Amino acid sequence: MSALPVPATLAPDDTGHLYLRVSSQVAELIEKGSLRPGEKVPSVRRLSAQFQVSISTVVQAYRLLENRGLIEARPQSGYYVRPRRWTPPPEPELCLKEPSVADLKVGDLIMQVVRDYQAGSLVRLGATCATVGLHSPPALHRALASVARRSAQRGVEPDSLAGRAAFRAQVARHAVASGCALSPGEIIATSGATESVHLCLRAVCKPGDLIAIESPTFFGFLQLIESLGMRAVEIPTYPRDGVCLDALAFALEQQDIKACLFVLNFANPLGSCMPDDKKARLVQMLAEKNVPLIENDIYGSLFFGKARPRSAKSFDRHGNVLLCDSFNKILAPGYRVGWVAPGRFQSKVEYLKFITTDASASLAQLAIAEFLANGSYEHHLRRLRRIYAAGIASMSEAVAHFFPAGTRLTRPAGGQLLWVELPAEVDSLELYRRALQERIAIAPGPIFSAKQKCRNFIRLNCGNPWSESIEAAIRKLGCLSHDILAATRRTASN
Amino acid sequence: MSALPVPATLAPDDTGHLYLRVSSQVAELIEKGSLRPGEKVPSVRRLSAQFQVSISTVVQAYRLLENRGLIEARPQSGYYVRPRRWTPPPEPELCLKEPSVADLKVGDLIMQVVRDYQAGSLVRLGATCATVGLHSPPALHRALASVARRSAQRGVEPDSLAGRAAFRAQVARHAVASGCALSPGEIIATSGATESVHLCLRAVCKPGDLIAIESPTFFGFLQLIESLGMRAVEIPTYPRDGVCLDALAFALEQQDIKACLFVLNFANPLGSCMPDDKKARLVQMLAEKNVPLIENDIYGSLFFGKARPRSAKSFDRHGNVLLCDSFNKILAPGYRVGWVAPGRFQSKVEYLKFITTDASASLAQLAIAEFLANGSYEHHLRRLRRIYAAGIASMSEAVAHFFPAGTRLTRPAGGQLLWVELPAEVDSLELYRRALQERIAIAPGPIFSAKQKCRNFIRLNCGNPWSESIEAAIRKLGCLSHDILAATRRTASN
Repeated sequence: MSALPVPATLAPDDTGHLYLRVSSQVAELIEKGSLRPGEKVPSVRRLSAQFQVSISTVVQAYRLLENRGLIEARPQSGYYVRPRRWTPPPEPELCLKEPSVADLKVGDLIMQVVRDYQAGSLVRLGATCATVGLHSPPALHRALASVARRSAQRGVEPDSLAGRAAFRAQVARHAVASGCALSPGEIIATSGATESVHLCLRAVCKPGDLIAIESPTFFGFLQLIESLGMRAVEIPTYPRDGVCLDALAFALEQQDIKACLFVLNFANPLGSCMPDDKKARLVQMLAEKNVPLIENDIYGSLFFGKARPRSAKSFDRHGNVLLCDSFNKILAPGYRVGWVAPGRFQSKVEYLKFITTDASASLAQLAIAEFLANGSYEHHLRRLRRIYAAGIASMSEAVAHFFPAGTRLTRPAGGQLLWVELPAEVDSLELYRRALQERIAIAPGPIFSAKQKCRNFIRLNCGNPWSESIEAAIRKLGCLSHDILAATRRTASN
Repeated sequence: MSALPVPATLAPDDTGHLYLRVSSQVAELIEKGSLRPGEKVPSVRRLSAQFQVSISTVVQAYRLLENRGLIEARPQSGYYVRPRRWTPPPEPELCLKEPSVADLKVGDLIMQVVRDYQAGSLVRLGATCATVGLHSPPALHRALASVARRSAQRGVEPDSLAGRAAFRAQVARHAVASGCALSPGEIIATSGATESVHLCLRAVCKPGDLIAIESPTFFGFLQLIESLGMRAVEIPTYPRDGVCLDALAFALEQQDIKACLFVLNFANPLGSCMPDDKKARLVQMLAEKNVPLIENDIYGSLFFGKARPRSAKSFDRHGNVLLCDSFNKILAPGYRVGWVAPGRFQSKVEYLKFITTDASASLAQLAIAEFLANGSYEHHLRRLRRIYAAGIASMSEAVAHFFPAGTRLTRPAGGQLLWVELPAEVDSLELYRRALQERIAIAPGPIFSAKQKCRNFIRLNCGNPWSESIEAAIRKLGCLSHDILAATRRTASN
């Protein structure tokens, strides 16, 4: 809270009541947007020091603000700016009504978007890439420095193919939070979820095979499936509850599906989270059909509610679920450490790992194991969740405010992504190109679809702490959308 | 040289000539094997301090030993124990007389050998895995610690797909030694040569395609080619000069070969090194046929002669050579950093990298870049070459001494491997199994052949500093070979 924009002195006020002056000062900060919905307000102690008033005066001021509905107390944590009363837009509908098979032709669009994203001085609302200062906490680097110093003294043991014992033990302990009882021996270290999913796809399928995926889905899955000569069948997916099980059951009847590749907790780009009882039914259904489920759970720890949603793996009794996870997105970019628990495909995944990339980096694993062991990880996750929840609240409000009428918006209960449905006439590729000219990067809908549908959708990354430049970028995106909409309607009416 | 077994005081001698007493003491150490052929003898200064005699006495003693042919001076470096006068066995002949196409069925043998190797308390003469204390020098870990400390202070930049600029610049500088003029932009960081080769194979070929490989070749290449649904054509390869170009030309005429995958400098397991002019012809031939060459040059820096052999890439004028290299085997196990310079296939390799493992670990790259930049790498390589050259000399002598008559042996001019041809009656899988019971691990010939030929060959790793336990293991291997030979001959004569 060090950079909080509270004025150094109290403004003059003639009521004589100090607490009224304090509260009106804070109220003004909230109204001007210097303190955003979901953000923590300065602690009572801090404000009392800054304004040189008594603790009880600040307490009284905060009670008043609470009564006025501007802030809210959270137990053991302090006061937070209350989300403003605004009407959230309706949620998007299903992108796809029934399962659809696709021979993938992902083409150059995705790589063009990825390359565009590398350019300098962009407001980056597209990819979910790490933010300097937010990810990779100093304590992690200190753990690595200490591992490196020890290695300088004692040398390094040869790399172990499945990963370091200390790392696998910590991962197993950590997986308990998602309901999994994994032994360290069931876990294989990888360089991240991308490698994990790649290995799993090759372990369970061969070229020509059909893979069921969510619609929309992460573009990297489309690229992987295409590059391995496999085919995809897209399953309709609800923005809130995830994959439609009836549609999946129908697809399993009609098609020779060899595997499912799903993100069940805070999916990318939908943000959907499948309720745990529905996960249990999914796992049961796939076990009966003997169809393996490749589950990518990299966002599961980023829940905003009371408890972490379970992984599908936690319901698995037949080794039929291959659970993929990673520390790259939420803790340790620059380290490249992930893992996979491949169930009954363990030896196959281990073999493929051995021949395609060999062992994973020992020193990075040891540093992460140390960070997990000393409890720093939970602290780090709590901080991230707070920032992401605030980011999604602010972004939702800004989109509701600046985007054209008819815009729909997801309401994710975790993660860092918003999936925005623009009015049907707004072509998101056109919006993407115009935004890029304004140095704003977004992710256009078609990259998330096997057949490049979702033409009026965009994905927004809310993982960065809210800032004026982000607000300005959303305002600009709103203007551009209005422009495109108006132009399309003009053309249509001519 | 700190652990050198020189007695603390001079033995009594009644000649009265101090330098004679010094020289006979050192001669005895050489004859007893405490100082091995190729090893450096203590410096003049050190010996003079230890024996408390004058510098000129030691110089006189060393001149005498030099005259007797026991040691030799190397300019700017000091005195070394001269290789003993023993007759090296003849070199092996071609394993394969003409090109041979194979649908690979690598099967479980390789993985069994790999798993056996993980067991504890083995004398490890099989794999080329790293040795604690020999690889990963302390200065490298100190560089990593310093990178980690800086990251704790300043945060970490997002990973860059192709690798860190500092790393790619150092690799480009380093590649000059192999005759390559690469720009940093032509280099992509990977997790090692295994990943590099995997990406290259997928970039240039598709399932069903035919790849030309050396015979014998590294077993990992066989596994990769098989797993990608590709087929191999084995090309006869000379133990000294590498791939037979006539046989390759013939194969290129007869078969629709889509790529070559070769190790031209100190190949695994042959140790062959293709002369530079022959490399130029190879590159020319393949460019004319438009067949890409995937070159794995991970052993090229481990030359024993005056200069580093060139890479084939250095003769490439058409972007037709994809050069793969790695720091995992010779510098930094535990870091997992390699690279690839894929020529005209750059964007394809970059794409496959992106979708299969995404970016590589930034912090490890930065540490290696720092180690390369400050000149530590050259020092490290000189030390490794010295130890490997001595290891190969000692191992060759021991094999010549203990193995059955008729044994043949390669004479590599670099690297760390010996390829041993046993009398035809000795089944190397039988020898492998019996050796394992004695806690000795070797690599049996059949894992290096697409059709599991090379049944009377074994590969020995000479990368560890010579020791009594290694000498005892070679003696034991010799005994086992004699036993198997005798048993086979008995059976044959019955």
